[in-house]
Amino acid sequence: MDTRNLIGNNYLPEAGKKFKAVDPALGTDLPGEFYAASISEADAAVNLAYKAFAEYRQTDKNKRAAFLRSIADEMKVLTDAIIERAMGESGLPAQRLQGELNRTTNQLYMFADLLEEGSWVEAIIDTAIPDRKPLPRIDIRKMMVPVGPAVVFGASNFPLAYSVAGGDTAAALASGCPVVVKAHPAHPGTSALVAEAIKKAAEQHNMPEGVFSILYDDGFAIGEALVKHPKTKIVTFTGSLRGGMALMKMARERDEPIPVFAEMGSINPVILLPQALENRAEELAKIYGSITTNAGQFCTKPGLLIAVNSEGLEKFKKSLAEGIATVNSATMLTSGICSNYNKLSKERLAEDAVSVIAQSDKLDKEKINQGLAIVTEITASAFLADEKYKEEVFGPYSMLVVADDIAQLEQVLNSLHGQLTASVMAEPGELSKYKSITDKLADMAGRVILNGPPTGVEVGNAINHGGPFPATSDSRFTSVGTSSIKRFVRPVCWQNWSEELLPDELKTNNPLKIWRLFNNEWKK
Amino acid sequence: MDTRNLIGNNYLPEAGKKFKAVDPALGTDLPGEFYAASISEADAAVNLAYKAFAEYRQTDKNKRAAFLRSIADEMKVLTDAIIERAMGESGLPAQRLQGELNRTTNQLYMFADLLEEGSWVEAIIDTAIPDRKPLPRIDIRKMMVPVGPAVVFGASNFPLAYSVAGGDTAAALASGCPVVVKAHPAHPGTSALVAEAIKKAAEQHNMPEGVFSILYDDGFAIGEALVKHPKTKIVTFTGSLRGGMALMKMARERDEPIPVFAEMGSINPVILLPQALENRAEELAKIYGSITTNAGQFCTKPGLLIAVNSEGLEKFKKSLAEGIATVNSATMLTSGICSNYNKLSKERLAEDAVSVIAQSDKLDKEKINQGLAIVTEITASAFLADEKYKEEVFGPYSMLVVADDIAQLEQVLNSLHGQLTASVMAEPGELSKYKSITDKLADMAGRVILNGPPTGVEVGNAINHGGPFPATSDSRFTSVGTSSIKRFVRPVCWQNWSEELLPDELKTNNPLKIWRLFNNEWKK
Repeated sequence: MDTRNLIGNNYLPEAGKKFKAVDPALGTDLPGEFYAASISEADAAVNLAYKAFAEYRQTDKNKRAAFLRSIADEMKVLTDAIIERAMGESGLPAQRLQGELNRTTNQLYMFADLLEEGSWVEAIIDTAIPDRKPLPRIDIRKMMVPVGPAVVFGASNFPLAYSVAGGDTAAALASGCPVVVKAHPAHPGTSALVAEAIKKAAEQHNMPEGVFSILYDDGFAIGEALVKHPKTKIVTFTGSLRGGMALMKMARERDEPIPVFAEMGSINPVILLPQALENRAEELAKIYGSITTNAGQFCTKPGLLIAVNSEGLEKFKKSLAEGIATVNSATMLTSGICSNYNKLSKERLAEDAVSVIAQSDKLDKEKINQGLAIVTEITASAFLADEKYKEEVFGPYSMLVVADDIAQLEQVLNSLHGQLTASVMAEPGELSKYKSITDKLADMAGRVILNGPPTGVEVGNAINHGGPFPATSDSRFTSVGTSSIKRFVRPVCWQNWSEELLPDELKTNNPLKIWRLFNNEWKK
Repeated sequence: MDTRNLIGNNYLPEAGKKFKAVDPALGTDLPGEFYAASISEADAAVNLAYKAFAEYRQTDKNKRAAFLRSIADEMKVLTDAIIERAMGESGLPAQRLQGELNRTTNQLYMFADLLEEGSWVEAIIDTAIPDRKPLPRIDIRKMMVPVGPAVVFGASNFPLAYSVAGGDTAAALASGCPVVVKAHPAHPGTSALVAEAIKKAAEQHNMPEGVFSILYDDGFAIGEALVKHPKTKIVTFTGSLRGGMALMKMARERDEPIPVFAEMGSINPVILLPQALENRAEELAKIYGSITTNAGQFCTKPGLLIAVNSEGLEKFKKSLAEGIATVNSATMLTSGICSNYNKLSKERLAEDAVSVIAQSDKLDKEKINQGLAIVTEITASAFLADEKYKEEVFGPYSMLVVADDIAQLEQVLNSLHGQLTASVMAEPGELSKYKSITDKLADMAGRVILNGPPTGVEVGNAINHGGPFPATSDSRFTSVGTSSIKRFVRPVCWQNWSEELLPDELKTNNPLKIWRLFNNEWKK
């Protein structure tokens, strides 16, 4: 593991403020020293990325695909080291991290496939019609092109799938944008191992130097310098609302404002409809797993359950309480996240309006930074009276909002802000009776789910992971799946351009055999 | 012509501050009194739009298409009145306005066709794979949905094609977003006539009331109230950099930040390559028409010509001067635009570094607010030394930048900000020698053009009208052509959803027969 800052193919001298990774379960330092990068190093990384961009954007798509595959392959070679280190740094269990590593490499393969297939560039061609009246039509051809250097912030809760070679990096590199990663200080060692895999793959495929760099910092200065660098063209971030908003502010106050794709807070409401509660309360109560797995540290954790008072609901609460009581404490990602969880959940419990449905006491006393599962209850009218209940409590926490009737349930729903997901539990045929509810779910969220938990995000073509503010900074783009490549591109059209100088994607004879809208007809 | 503010199907009482339209060629008032809307009226318009949204978004696509066609048809019925009034309010000639009216109605028909065809929603379907290992795949289906009420600012320089029923309104209504128009105070009567056509079409097709409203104001208060309204979800604007930036600021400082699609300043550089200048300087000089038509009041007017010093360039300058000298003065859109043009062009001429290539003296003394064509010249080194030469001079003005050699020409090019268009004039075979130049053009602009003027924007599938900041606020979207509908939508996916409750676009048997990515295969 080489812990030094990396710009292009060169590790930088060990200099600057040192910091170490901490095992959150024990509070002890992990091996290896990291060095906070300097502002001039941040500057150099983006400048090199910009220089690399001119060449990288024009790389043959199959070569770029091979590069992505090699990153995944090199990560697999390092599997044991990566998982061991990630366990130490994140407190997450091996099985989860193995799953996350598989997801990460699969994402890279997925984008490689997407590149090879090639149609993602949305090529549209209108050929000339010289005798059109009143004016001739000129030949115009459009496709998506990469925007330039991307700054990717590693996420604390996905040390692999949303960090150094995660979804953002994979999509950016696939699109033709070089990447400068700001490693998350909670898992710098995991980051360093993955960076080695990318470096090796870049060298192996003779990628232009600067297509990838990674910088460390346990403070905010380097992140800020990267976002403010005039040659940075796009920023991706997954984390808190506060962090995301701060980056958005920096990005829009630049001389040239740039987009920040920030995934921030979401409480992922789950509606429990009356018939479903009546027929299968115990089964529905299994949602406690989605609330508590990996200490509830998912952006799609169901933080709000909404139902109408009923006998079924009482059964649900009973089963839910039984389930929650069986959940062992789990190590949270960092001591900061754990203390914030304890603070927020205690604040909720201290409110008169809030009662406890269930609280686990199965604390692992050998470890520190343990998150204990809690589900609380509140009446709809109390919920509606206080904005704070709409804020995310990051950790194994959820709140049941009990409405008097469906009208009040709808009121609760209508009061919510934008969400990543919104779910509904319903019996067959029951859903069609509540059209205004299902319409509202699709209006508020990026993904709506029937009879299933919101956690466990499928990575594919049809997934949408994003939602109206404040769930994300830009609901028009997904951060998961093949469509997430669209964040890194913009359209350019060539008018009356010389056939031989057009990009292959736009040449008349379609040498890449991609799908195109050709004179208003979709064809290959 | 009903000059009152219109909310849904109801004209509001005549109240509030009055204002009149002014004929810019004569400085005289035109018939009809308009009333600045009140803040509570702005509030009511957006609230009604939001109410209409719930129903309008679910309108059958063919019904929505018929609505759009009727708007165009109703506008055609009013052709004579619209053109006469628009001539009086804008100073633009009848032929141009007839062309613009045709463009406007064609845009509406184009979106109607797009709706009927239906594939624009980008439907993507991944069906369930229950036996996938290690985890089953869940059924997920994604498509674009409208975001909600749109506020459309009428543009001064396109009283029809980028105003009340222009490209923004047509795209918004096509997408399923209701529209509240803030009429441009320079052409309120034209706006009122077009609004009547929309109102009639909406009533004829029983559209939910509030799908369209229009408010007047000769100040900024109503525009601000509309942008800040919590139920407004998107804003479109074409105008000055200052205006666009002010709207962007308002929109991002809301509790829920919303996107503003602002088309702002662009100087649309035109590179004249040496061989082309040597072989056909006189022909290239015909670009004076693109500089001066309709007083140069186009966002794509070529405001910067760049070439290397040569004999060919001298010939070009001579022909250009001859051309410019023949150009009659033309009425500018408003007295404000004309005085700003006179001020800026005089400031340029007063600079020691700037000389005059040509200046028309063919002033129409019967009229006021006349713009006279000017083309100036500057050395590349002087251009590079002062940022102000990169600012747009809105009107019949352009500047020739003369470089010592190709390297210096490239320096000029590299110094420019984002542009709507970038053009190059080249002989066959010449372009391939200047790859770094053509690459740079595509890097800086949204549309690159070979051997043609940037004015005259083709409205179709392949067009891209948009470019990196400051040309537009968001280079990822075009404001012209079918793709401009994408500004008004965001993706939503339905997971494990009930087949009969899915939108028709996502039903398995594809009842709408649209193109979809179905299990990773494009098909109908």
